[in-house]
Amino acid sequence: MNAEIIAVGTELLLGQIANTNGAYLAQKLAEIGVNVYYQTVVGDNPERLEKVLNVAEKRSDLVLTIGGLGPTEDDLTKQIVARHLGESLVTDQPAKDKIDTYAATTKRNLTANNLKQALKIDHAISLTNHNGFAVGDLYVNEDGPSYVLLPGPPAECLMMIDRELIPQLKKRGHSNHVFISRVLRFIGIGESKLVTDLADLIDHQTNPTIAPYAKMAEVTLRVTAAAQDEQRANELIEQTVDKILKRDGQYFYGYGDDNSLTQVVINQLIDRKLSVTAAESLTAGEFQSTIGSVPGVSAVFPGGFVTYANEAKHQLLEIPNDVIDTQGVVSKATAIWMAKQAKAKMQTDIAVSFTGVAGPDELEGQPAGTVWIGIAYRDQEPEAFLFHFTNGRQQVRARSVMTGLDLIRQRLAAE
Amino acid sequence: MNAEIIAVGTELLLGQIANTNGAYLAQKLAEIGVNVYYQTVVGDNPERLEKVLNVAEKRSDLVLTIGGLGPTEDDLTKQIVARHLGESLVTDQPAKDKIDTYAATTKRNLTANNLKQALKIDHAISLTNHNGFAVGDLYVNEDGPSYVLLPGPPAECLMMIDRELIPQLKKRGHSNHVFISRVLRFIGIGESKLVTDLADLIDHQTNPTIAPYAKMAEVTLRVTAAAQDEQRANELIEQTVDKILKRDGQYFYGYGDDNSLTQVVINQLIDRKLSVTAAESLTAGEFQSTIGSVPGVSAVFPGGFVTYANEAKHQLLEIPNDVIDTQGVVSKATAIWMAKQAKAKMQTDIAVSFTGVAGPDELEGQPAGTVWIGIAYRDQEPEAFLFHFTNGRQQVRARSVMTGLDLIRQRLAAE
Repeated sequence: MNAEIIAVGTELLLGQIANTNGAYLAQKLAEIGVNVYYQTVVGDNPERLEKVLNVAEKRSDLVLTIGGLGPTEDDLTKQIVARHLGESLVTDQPAKDKIDTYAATTKRNLTANNLKQALKIDHAISLTNHNGFAVGDLYVNEDGPSYVLLPGPPAECLMMIDRELIPQLKKRGHSNHVFISRVLRFIGIGESKLVTDLADLIDHQTNPTIAPYAKMAEVTLRVTAAAQDEQRANELIEQTVDKILKRDGQYFYGYGDDNSLTQVVINQLIDRKLSVTAAESLTAGEFQSTIGSVPGVSAVFPGGFVTYANEAKHQLLEIPNDVIDTQGVVSKATAIWMAKQAKAKMQTDIAVSFTGVAGPDELEGQPAGTVWIGIAYRDQEPEAFLFHFTNGRQQVRARSVMTGLDLIRQRLAAE
Repeated sequence: MNAEIIAVGTELLLGQIANTNGAYLAQKLAEIGVNVYYQTVVGDNPERLEKVLNVAEKRSDLVLTIGGLGPTEDDLTKQIVARHLGESLVTDQPAKDKIDTYAATTKRNLTANNLKQALKIDHAISLTNHNGFAVGDLYVNEDGPSYVLLPGPPAECLMMIDRELIPQLKKRGHSNHVFISRVLRFIGIGESKLVTDLADLIDHQTNPTIAPYAKMAEVTLRVTAAAQDEQRANELIEQTVDKILKRDGQYFYGYGDDNSLTQVVINQLIDRKLSVTAAESLTAGEFQSTIGSVPGVSAVFPGGFVTYANEAKHQLLEIPNDVIDTQGVVSKATAIWMAKQAKAKMQTDIAVSFTGVAGPDELEGQPAGTVWIGIAYRDQEPEAFLFHFTNGRQQVRARSVMTGLDLIRQRLAAE
């Protein structure tokens, strides 16, 4: 079945906000095998929306609108689609009850505008709004395309897609198969290397499909299987994942769209009760700030050092002046001293250190992007590794942080 | 004139990336008075792109495509638009020279695919690609709509819009007026308060227009004037800016879309040769990492402290144990001690400190979002201020950092 998404809103059209709802909806429809062939954005303008509906119904089996269900005068999507279908609008009792309850609880007087949000297209299936008041619609049409109306605020839209729309479409057989995806996350390997390693799998396998995607310092693979039921789809995924991990398992760190290397590493440290600190020069606290984003990190992270200037490395970490003087601040020796001293001073199990050239200017004759990352891991001899990162100051710093986390991950995996 | 944007790319259609180019282009067109009434996304599919062009030319005077100009087989936008117009493709010599030079410099052999990027639609004006090889097109059509073809990679697309397309459209009179915008940035005031303060200006003024936009911890106002020439437009903007700053000047910190509070504050510190450090608990290095993003910050930032655990506050900053024991770690006293000790230890002119509850759990009976921010500024008595931030752990931390920067800004402004 061919679907088309129409996002309604002048603020989208003028570029004040990006159409992230549309991207999310397209992704979710693809996962259940519904092909989106067109996406259109149109302003809050009745005539132009009507024109867009006329174009859409000639080429699509399912037309999904986003936006224009709210209480203001601009919000006209439901009125226009209903007129287009020759249907009237009727009150959705559960949606009206919810608005009434809210008004009673907060002692507000309701206006006609508020109740507008409880209207649905006659003969449509209501889609409950779990994060707001405007009810959504699924209008199943035997003679022409079916219509779906979703609210514009992302929190409302995304929740309605996940909890209402996708289950309804699955139930109503708008998808012949169950589609299941699993995302595998890799660090320390480039997209081109990973794709080359898996070329035969990617090229010859049509079910499951394997879709690579490169992000900052990491690569993900989305493995998607179609089958008659969930169990069979999961089996197909398992078989493919096994083949992938047999080849590149050493770079694999976790599953899931919402996962991150930071979460995986910190949660492993929490599980194993291993504490961590850092001494940061070019990253200026970004490693510590990143691990600080994980709830519960306080169990394993007492704090650490931002030693941007050489004097700070000497004063806070007591790195002998002659190490920096003779070896340079961007050097293996300095990185190792920084990690070793940070670990000793904070009495942690692990310390990582970062010294290098964030750029844009070079330092000590070394070009921007030259980074030494040190690691003192438990009772192992402290080590340091040289990296050359590109793409500007912020990327150099961010990739340094990810690589520091990966050094910890590798050592945890080796134990 | 009515414009329509067509973004071409299966990865856009399937929601793997959001259509940020389209948003940017719509914004830039609006600024020169070109109205965008429709935006469409279509996959890398010749038939469907052709269909979209057929729809577009019936309703728009200017059709702008984004994407599909690259070297791969999928990239077919130029071929299809040329066929649609009944034009052939010809080589753009400067674009070909650039590719040849690159090949010679890097000693690569060129394939036919590489040279495809140097093709332009016959009779079109070439739009130079400053960040890549694929040349863009402006095809001015007297009988039907005019066409613009832009590349898909954002770095290439945005630069071509700014440096090539907008100047060409202005020059060719596709805008009756000169439109000039100026963005004013405010910190420490909410959007609703600012809008209320300026209600009469915002409601009654049609030229310039004033458009507020709320971002994380700050608000911007875009003042846009239309006039026959730049000088008159700038005069109109000046008059409105004066009125705005007379009312809310104390919250204003700078101009410009690409500006940030971090840049403004750090560059002021560099100009005045005032050094800064920090002692961070809940922010875990995010303040220092943020100021570390500004090139040249090393002149005023020697480094600082991440003191997540109480022991670290005691050990690294020598805060007396009884301060934390009797006052609590989330307290005015602890914040003041942290700032004072950080300043003394790093011998800087300024120190800020952060202690609070990032969440999700409460701490010492205080709810998530409770934050004390301390500041030791030059020879002034150290102070600390209490804030209550909302919207989860990352927002609480990020707003703390912005507020710390604002405390410095206020003191710099008062001198």
